[in-house]
Amino acid sequence: MATIKDVAARAGVAVGTASRVLSGSPQTSPDSRSRVLAAAAELGYIANGPARSLRRARTDVLGLLVSDIRNPFFSELAHAAEQEARAHGYTVILANANEDAAQADAVLDVFASQRIDGLLLSPQGPKTPRLEALLASDLPIVLLNRSIEGVDAPLYGTDNAGGVAQALKWLQRRGHRDVAFIGGPETFSTGAERHDAYLAGREAHGICTDDALVDAGDFLADGAAEAMLRILDRGALPTAVFGANGQTTLGAMRAVHERLGAEAASLIEFVSFDDVEWFAFMSPPVSAVKNDAPEIGRAGVRGLLALINGGTATSQRIATTFIDRSAGSAA
Amino acid sequence: MATIKDVAARAGVAVGTASRVLSGSPQTSPDSRSRVLAAAAELGYIANGPARSLRRARTDVLGLLVSDIRNPFFSELAHAAEQEARAHGYTVILANANEDAAQADAVLDVFASQRIDGLLLSPQGPKTPRLEALLASDLPIVLLNRSIEGVDAPLYGTDNAGGVAQALKWLQRRGHRDVAFIGGPETFSTGAERHDAYLAGREAHGICTDDALVDAGDFLADGAAEAMLRILDRGALPTAVFGANGQTTLGAMRAVHERLGAEAASLIEFVSFDDVEWFAFMSPPVSAVKNDAPEIGRAGVRGLLALINGGTATSQRIATTFIDRSAGSAA
Repeated sequence: MATIKDVAARAGVAVGTASRVLSGSPQTSPDSRSRVLAAAAELGYIANGPARSLRRARTDVLGLLVSDIRNPFFSELAHAAEQEARAHGYTVILANANEDAAQADAVLDVFASQRIDGLLLSPQGPKTPRLEALLASDLPIVLLNRSIEGVDAPLYGTDNAGGVAQALKWLQRRGHRDVAFIGGPETFSTGAERHDAYLAGREAHGICTDDALVDAGDFLADGAAEAMLRILDRGALPTAVFGANGQTTLGAMRAVHERLGAEAASLIEFVSFDDVEWFAFMSPPVSAVKNDAPEIGRAGVRGLLALINGGTATSQRIATTFIDRSAGSAA
Repeated sequence: MATIKDVAARAGVAVGTASRVLSGSPQTSPDSRSRVLAAAAELGYIANGPARSLRRARTDVLGLLVSDIRNPFFSELAHAAEQEARAHGYTVILANANEDAAQADAVLDVFASQRIDGLLLSPQGPKTPRLEALLASDLPIVLLNRSIEGVDAPLYGTDNAGGVAQALKWLQRRGHRDVAFIGGPETFSTGAERHDAYLAGREAHGICTDDALVDAGDFLADGAAEAMLRILDRGALPTAVFGANGQTTLGAMRAVHERLGAEAASLIEFVSFDDVEWFAFMSPPVSAVKNDAPEIGRAGVRGLLALINGGTATSQRIATTFIDRSAGSAA
C-alpha cells in the first residue's frame, strides 16, 4: 500500500507539501496540487488518505456523478436520488461528466477532496487510473446505469435486454420488417447491451437482418442524426426507426425530417428506448420503452446508504415498461 | 458582527463544540451540528467563519444551485456553466432545489461546509434566514435567472419583457384574439415579469383582455395542467395558448388533449416561453421564445470569476430569440 512518502516522491515534492495538499490546506500551489493528486491517483494512495477521513467525518452528503445532465434520463434519476437521500437526512451534490472521461476524472478529484459520505457514479466507458484509485479506496461507491469491466461495485441499472425485447415485440405487432436501429457507443455497457439484444432478437421478430439498417451514434442527438443519414445514404428506406436512447431518437427524427421532409417522415414510426413526455403529442405519437430512471436513482441511494452504514448492497436491474402510443392502441 | 461565542450561546453548546462543527470536524453529533449551523445562520456568523476560509483555500470549485434539474432550461444552463468554468480551470458541483426553499436551504448548508470558491444561485422565491446569512458572507455569489427582492448581487437572467413582446407580436401576426396565458408563480421574478409584460402588452396586440383567459401554475407540468383546466372550465375556448415556461406548455398541452381530444387540440396553436427540441415535430409544431440558457450560464460564470479574482461584475439580461414554426413561416 502506498504511503504519503511514496506520493511525495512520485510528485517530486516534500512530504509536508503532499500532506497539505491531501488534507485540503489552502497553503499549496496549483502546480503542487495537481502533481500530488495525480501521484496519489496513480499510486492508489487515496485508499488510506482523505477518503477514509472523509468517510469518518459523516457529512450527510452524497456525491452523484451523472453522464449527461441534459439527458432527461439522468436529470430524472438525479432528482429521484436526491429526494430519496433527503428522506434519509442526506443532501446530494451533483456533477456532470458530459459523456467525457477526462471531465469525469476532474469531478472525481473534486469529490475526493470534498467531504462526502459516499458516491453514486454513472461511468463513462472503461476505468481511468483516477477512477481505479477511487474504487480502491474505502469510500462507499455504487454504480448507476452503466457497469465497468472488471469492477464489482453494486450496479443499479436498467434491464436493457428486457426493454429491447418489448420494443421488438411492438415492431413485430406493427408489422415492421425494414427497421433502422440507431445504437449508442459500444464502450458503454448500455450501448453494448441494447445493440446486442437487438441483433440477437430481430430475426425471431420478423425484422430484416440487413446490417445496412444498423448504425450507431454517441447517445447524443448530433451523432445519432449522422448515423441516421448514413443509413439513408446506403439506400435503405425503413418503415420504423428504433433509437437506443431519447437523444438518439431526437437526432434520428431530425435527420429523417431534414432528408425526407415532414410528410414522408410522418409515415415512419419511431420507437425509443427512454420515454419523453412530449412523445404523446408528436405526429405520429412515439412509442417508447420507459426506462425507470427514478427507481434506479432511489435503489442506488438505498444501496449506497446500506454500504455507508456498514451493510452490504446487491446489484439490481430495474424493469422497463412499454408505452404503446401507436394508432389503434388502447393508450 | 456575531462571534463564535454568540453562536455557541445561541446553540446552547460549548464554544469548542461550535468551533468543531464550523470547521467540519468529524467529532460532532448530528444534534449539535444542526443546532450550531442553525444558530450560525440566524446570526449571520458564516460571514467570518467557514466561508472566508473556504474562499482562501482556492479549491477551483464553483457551486451551482439550480431550481429544477428536470427543467431543460436549468440542465442546459448547468451544462454551459460547467463548460465555461472548465475552460477557466474550475469544476462545478451542482445541487437541485426542486423549486423548494427548504431544500435550497439544506443545499446552501452543504455548500457552506464544502470547499467552494464561489456560488451561482438560482433562488426559490424570497430570502430565507439561511440565504441571508450566506449573502452577507464574503463568499462570492451571483444570481442566475431570478432576482430576490432586496438583494443586490449581480443577476444573470433573461430579458423576460423582450421575450413576451416577441410572443405577442407572433400572436398578433397569426390573428389570435382569444389567447389563454398560463403563467408561473408570482413569487418568482421570472413568473412576475412574464405575467406583467403579457398583461401590459396584450391589448395593443389585439388580444382579448378577459381575465378568464389568464391563470397561473407552478412552472411545473401538473400545476400548469390544472390552470389550463380552470380556464376551460370558465367556458373560454382559446385559439392559442401561451405557456410561460417549457413545463407549463407541456402541462397545458396535456390538459387540452385530455379535455378536448387530439383533433380539437390540433386546431389550437401553442407558443412557449422556453424552446424544446421536440417542438419542431409536434402537430402542429410549437413556436417558442428561445431562452438562451447556455449564455446565461456562461455569463454567470464569467461574472462569478470576476468577483473571485477581486474584480466587479455587472448584472446582465440576455436577449431571447423567437422561433417561428407556424405553417407558412420561413422556418
